Amino acid sequence: MRKGELTRHTILERSAAIASRMGLSGVTIGQLAEDLELSKSGLFAHFQSKQALQLQTLQFAGQLFIDRVIRPALKAHRGEPRVRALFERWLEWAQASTLEGGCLFVAAASELDDRDGPVRDELVRQQKAWLELIANVAKGGVAEGDFHAGMDAEQFAYDLHGVMLAYHHARRLLRDKSAGQRARRAFLALLHVARATPLSRAARKARAS
Amino acid sequence: MRKGELTRHTILERSAAIASRMGLSGVTIGQLAEDLELSKSGLFAHFQSKQALQLQTLQFAGQLFIDRVIRPALKAHRGEPRVRALFERWLEWAQASTLEGGCLFVAAASELDDRDGPVRDELVRQQKAWLELIANVAKGGVAEGDFHAGMDAEQFAYDLHGVMLAYHHARRLLRDKSAGQRARRAFLALLHVARATPLSRAARKARAS
Repeated sequence: MRKGELTRHTILERSAAIASRMGLSGVTIGQLAEDLELSKSGLFAHFQSKQALQLQTLQFAGQLFIDRVIRPALKAHRGEPRVRALFERWLEWAQASTLEGGCLFVAAASELDDRDGPVRDELVRQQKAWLELIANVAKGGVAEGDFHAGMDAEQFAYDLHGVMLAYHHARRLLRDKSAGQRARRAFLALLHVARATPLSRAARKARAS
Repeated sequence: MRKGELTRHTILERSAAIASRMGLSGVTIGQLAEDLELSKSGLFAHFQSKQALQLQTLQFAGQLFIDRVIRPALKAHRGEPRVRALFERWLEWAQASTLEGGCLFVAAASELDDRDGPVRDELVRQQKAWLELIANVAKGGVAEGDFHAGMDAEQFAYDLHGVMLAYHHARRLLRDKSAGQRARRAFLALLHVARATPLSRAARKARAS
């Protein structure tokens, strides 16, 4: 990375961390300048407006999510293994090892749902793409014979999203120590419903061996 | 209600509506004074501080939730009918017929999860009480023989909460027209898993007739 890109990366990393705690509206050029000991005018050179800064922070977080969650999960074998990998990576992401305030997208969703404009539009685009990806990975489970043919993959994505939102709530607001266990149980129940009958699974395994 | 109480009620109603859109931090005495055409000093007489105003707004919303969701649902017959009534009332609440910005508690949860203080404490108290109430209503389903004895009522509460959070996200952020249908399907799947076996249900019905 060249120096300019490196600076930009550092700024957006800090900005995403602030947004995970305070929401995107908590990200200001003044706050960033103070945190990073950079001049306000230097920051303005990178981001012409508060809106541009928010938009790029969201895009930066989106790229981080792709790198930490999606890309590694897609390396797992298609079918149930990939669905499981997606869930585990997502759970790790929500545990906020990267972003101090937990999932930035959860914070942004309730912050932006009553507003209009390009930042909201970008968030909606990202969230729809993510739900679509979950549904496609679930369809891979049908193609592999792990899940039954009648399973509703879009519903599975909706349900899994709910599990993660409840996890976020239990862990971050209620500070419930069993949050992770609850999320895993809920996920296993979803898998259980999605699965092909034991008989057809056994048949498939016999076929494969 | 006396005049003072009436004014207080009107103020908190407005304040809760603002908080449902902008979060509790969006509620300011200045904004309220402007919206309600009241003097700032008059508002200060009701609420000595911004924190007191936020706390009372949250308590006001909590009471509204009890009146609109909990109290009517508890009139339904104990067991599955009461669980269904709870879900339907909750869904109505989230449809924001009362609060223009949707569920105030969803907004407050992601707003307050990284902060400390009495407003957060009150929200945590409310949310825990609500999850406990759902679990208790689910246990009523076990007592009535509608749900199987081994069902995990706390997990049921966690799962149902996830369904509602996903609904809120789908409806308000994604403006997904099928949000209500998705929530209903997810709820029916939870009921299906919780239910006693068809055999024991049939036995119970035979007993009852």
